[in-house]
Amino acid sequence: MKVRFLVTDVAAFSFNKLVIFGVGLIGGSLARALRERGEAAGARTVVGVGRSSASTARALELGVVDETAALGDDAALRAALSGADFVLLAAPVAQTQPLLERIAPFLDAGTIVTDAGSTKSDVVASARAALGVRIGQFVPGHPIAGREASGPDAALPDLYVNRNVVLCPLPENAPEAVERVAAMWRATGACVREMTPEQHDRVLASVSHLPHVLSFALVEQILNSPDAALKFSFAAGGFRDFTRIAASSPEMWRDVCVANRTALLDELDAYTAVLARLRAAIEAGDGAALEAVFARSRVARSEWQEQRSAGAALGDASK
Amino acid sequence: MKVRFLVTDVAAFSFNKLVIFGVGLIGGSLARALRERGEAAGARTVVGVGRSSASTARALELGVVDETAALGDDAALRAALSGADFVLLAAPVAQTQPLLERIAPFLDAGTIVTDAGSTKSDVVASARAALGVRIGQFVPGHPIAGREASGPDAALPDLYVNRNVVLCPLPENAPEAVERVAAMWRATGACVREMTPEQHDRVLASVSHLPHVLSFALVEQILNSPDAALKFSFAAGGFRDFTRIAASSPEMWRDVCVANRTALLDELDAYTAVLARLRAAIEAGDGAALEAVFARSRVARSEWQEQRSAGAALGDASK
Repeated sequence: MKVRFLVTDVAAFSFNKLVIFGVGLIGGSLARALRERGEAAGARTVVGVGRSSASTARALELGVVDETAALGDDAALRAALSGADFVLLAAPVAQTQPLLERIAPFLDAGTIVTDAGSTKSDVVASARAALGVRIGQFVPGHPIAGREASGPDAALPDLYVNRNVVLCPLPENAPEAVERVAAMWRATGACVREMTPEQHDRVLASVSHLPHVLSFALVEQILNSPDAALKFSFAAGGFRDFTRIAASSPEMWRDVCVANRTALLDELDAYTAVLARLRAAIEAGDGAALEAVFARSRVARSEWQEQRSAGAALGDASK
Repeated sequence: MKVRFLVTDVAAFSFNKLVIFGVGLIGGSLARALRERGEAAGARTVVGVGRSSASTARALELGVVDETAALGDDAALRAALSGADFVLLAAPVAQTQPLLERIAPFLDAGTIVTDAGSTKSDVVASARAALGVRIGQFVPGHPIAGREASGPDAALPDLYVNRNVVLCPLPENAPEAVERVAAMWRATGACVREMTPEQHDRVLASVSHLPHVLSFALVEQILNSPDAALKFSFAAGGFRDFTRIAASSPEMWRDVCVANRTALLDELDAYTAVLARLRAAIEAGDGAALEAVFARSRVARSEWQEQRSAGAALGDASK
């Protein structure tokens, strides 16, 4: 499997106007990173557009964005998009097509549109449907970073430092457009990597989407039991960490599950098969089989943590 | 369901000699808590006994214990247990019966034995088998605290602060013996709660044992996939927290799964049923059903976190 790493000069990045649709955790953190990390140059106007005026007003109040526009206001939207270098879609993935259809009539030919959606195959299909022959302006992306908190108050300038950002360039994208988006993300401290949409969706289904479903499911199971309150009262550190992601945005994860259902179902079925194997070992009292699986997992998890820590240290040292 | 809370004066706790079988994370943290938190009085000799001389020697070197004895040495074991107020078993639960059989010939009539096993029904059965008519000396217990690290170096003096310790008193226990064990744990900063072994095992199967199995299973599934390295390289914060407990002791969790298999299988089957329901919703693209489950889980998880934080703050304020 080929994973291409994009390397260009970090200092090359500059922009005049960035329009962010959805100034929550993801969009707000990009805005704060570009503003506060000091690695971007240019006029640097950031415009926040949202469905909820409360959310964009809050982003303005926090200084996350310089200007706001309401999605439903044609004149404001036209003004916001006029002369924009970049547009970032940072909304639940099911909104990709309606958002792009809404934006398309006001989009300058020189504007590069990218997104932060957690799934990519469906986003590409939505973008093709919405943009038609202008699809070359759209560079699909996914910053792999997050917190369980959401909204503009949750945005952090260092959310993307040493995090992976996946770009899934389309055949229609000009190489310069892809490099511009990569440079934008690198200016936030992120590592930019390139994959196909299908690779991306399979990998993320495994290490992100499935764990979210499993975590939500555990809380749901306890809620459904007759002694839920007692169980919660004895839940401790293991439960805390296992279920942290069950406090994530229901709307976002609903969209992810539906958008990436094919890959997710494959992973869920493979997981259920592993569980069935463990169930048989538990029922049979086969301690050796259980210990073998647990020991293998422990080694792999520990090695992953070591490599991650080493990568973070390297990233810090190279700044 | 009745859960009794034990309340006595914290200052009432004192001891002369505590013998700990297994001076790793759990046993070592009790020793350090009693030594360093300054809430216990008396001569306070702590003796560490272990299968591995490396582990007990390390505990001695770290100052976690004052003396050590080898489990296989009759004379040393007799000397260690002579005049002991307390014995704590802090070894994987499958060792309960052989350990108690080994200890029984050297046990003073006045010594109270307790344990830190993660399961209780099987521990009680093992203790009855090993101690016979002296079962009254054994007060079953379980401090609900842990870290994924193990061994004496992982021991912390504040591991039990604001954590639950469950005691499962037997009909044969003198109330004073139960109170003495409760006072010991309260001296570490823990909250002592009382349940039956069956209640304990069902609750812990749900909020602790099952999440461990699910976490080990996810790492195992990724390891089994052809693109494991790529997947691990894109795993981020959600994966990190979800799988933290997959770095736990394989031996301990093997024993827990086998010892508590009845309750664990019940919980695993209920969980699999929830997963099947979510699978159907994903396959059908039923976003409303998914969002309903995710939203319920998010609220419950957030409320749990708030109550936990409030409890911790209260605990800190009341010290």
